Amino acid sequence: MSSLVSFGKCCSVLVTGASRGIGLQMVDSLAAGGGFSPGKIIATTRNPATAQKLQELANKHPNIHIITLDVVSQESIERCAEEVGQLLQDEGLNCLINNAGINVVADLHSVTADKMMENFHTNAVAPLMITKAFLPLLKRAASRGEAGDSGSMSIQRAAVINVSSLLGSVELNWGEGANNIKWYPYRTSKSALNMVSRCMAKDLEPDGILCMAIHPGWVRTDMGGSEGLLSPEESVSSILSVIGGLSEKDHGSFLNFTGEALPW
Amino acid sequence: MSSLVSFGKCCSVLVTGASRGIGLQMVDSLAAGGGFSPGKIIATTRNPATAQKLQELANKHPNIHIITLDVVSQESIERCAEEVGQLLQDEGLNCLINNAGINVVADLHSVTADKMMENFHTNAVAPLMITKAFLPLLKRAASRGEAGDSGSMSIQRAAVINVSSLLGSVELNWGEGANNIKWYPYRTSKSALNMVSRCMAKDLEPDGILCMAIHPGWVRTDMGGSEGLLSPEESVSSILSVIGGLSEKDHGSFLNFTGEALPW
Repeated sequence: MSSLVSFGKCCSVLVTGASRGIGLQMVDSLAAGGGFSPGKIIATTRNPATAQKLQELANKHPNIHIITLDVVSQESIERCAEEVGQLLQDEGLNCLINNAGINVVADLHSVTADKMMENFHTNAVAPLMITKAFLPLLKRAASRGEAGDSGSMSIQRAAVINVSSLLGSVELNWGEGANNIKWYPYRTSKSALNMVSRCMAKDLEPDGILCMAIHPGWVRTDMGGSEGLLSPEESVSSILSVIGGLSEKDHGSFLNFTGEALPW
Repeated sequence: MSSLVSFGKCCSVLVTGASRGIGLQMVDSLAAGGGFSPGKIIATTRNPATAQKLQELANKHPNIHIITLDVVSQESIERCAEEVGQLLQDEGLNCLINNAGINVVADLHSVTADKMMENFHTNAVAPLMITKAFLPLLKRAASRGEAGDSGSMSIQRAAVINVSSLLGSVELNWGEGANNIKWYPYRTSKSALNMVSRCMAKDLEPDGILCMAIHPGWVRTDMGGSEGLLSPEESVSSILSVIGGLSEKDHGSFLNFTGEALPW
């Protein structure tokens, strides 16, 4: 698959929220990468013991490393970063995919401060705190660069990919249809994530670390529901194709799974 | 002043965070509205006893009503809405100005989850919860409408004005200079507020309640610092002029204090 070939030179990828949905599919698709070696795949989940499908994948593919991570616990984030550091050593981490997310469904009538805070913490604050914790590993990978290519940006060098959502676009939050879904906690958390992504892009630029946000499409997962337009395989195939080909021009961007730029 | 004349038919305005800065200046400017009667001005603050300048204004202008509101306390929000309801009775509330806000300054190095949550709660969640609590009063005012003008939108009928910030624009968060200030908690909270504002605009539309976000400019207040480009008087004069002239076309918008549309 062309979407996977582009990962060929990427030594290590970390995917948060890998026990199900898009995260699980990412690990599956990366591990099944045919003729090329995707290097180390680090799959984090809050509770590995109950992540049966992920365990099954790891049993098949020895390059999948499952590590515990509760994204809203600073202690857990720091412990995870330490474990990953021991695993990757001097290589550093090439690609951090902040995929873990929740949807605390609430409309104007049912929304509460607690629901807003909960969704914001998991979807916007956690990716920031996780990226901070993995920054030494990302910098290490970035400083090694690609042979003869140390000035460029790519996931083969070092990158932070934030799995955002079209529903985080303030501009598109108008009109009728799907764009008119008024999930206050989810929408605000993804707008906030987009801002976090953009802030981090600027801050990580001097180290040569690419940072961007991507919309995975409406996917048939536990979160997306059975009416989603894409299977997890279709979504992840597109996402991996897009992020595999990212370069400087995509730094700080917000892209659809099809690769097109989305409005903020 | 032309900026105040447009408030001529507006019976009641509520300003949160009115003890200092832009909120205090709004109350001052509204109360000093020369030949016209601005009706009732409700000024809320967390602790009226220590809001000396606001107390002095209220002593001069009997149409200023100071009411306690701690914007991050649901109990306080509900008690405030009840008091305001008793004050305004059948008239309802014409214009709610969600002005209260804080800046929990932190860059990538110093940001913590707690700092992110604190700023998000005050700047994005509170305006939502306050608007929800005042919705019955806003609806009451909207249903009375203006004579022969009940279908239109304006602050003279019913409106929610969210004091946002240019720093909440994800698109403008790029390049150098002031746009490159990486205050993670503040920036994300204002992006989130913009999303809340846009969600509410759609939800309040059927009731004829206008909703929008405005950037007050960089103002010389405690928050803006001494190097701000505008005096509080200049900023508020512009803001009142802009919001006084709002109509349907501005519903769901994000405007500069000069009246120009800002990118999300």
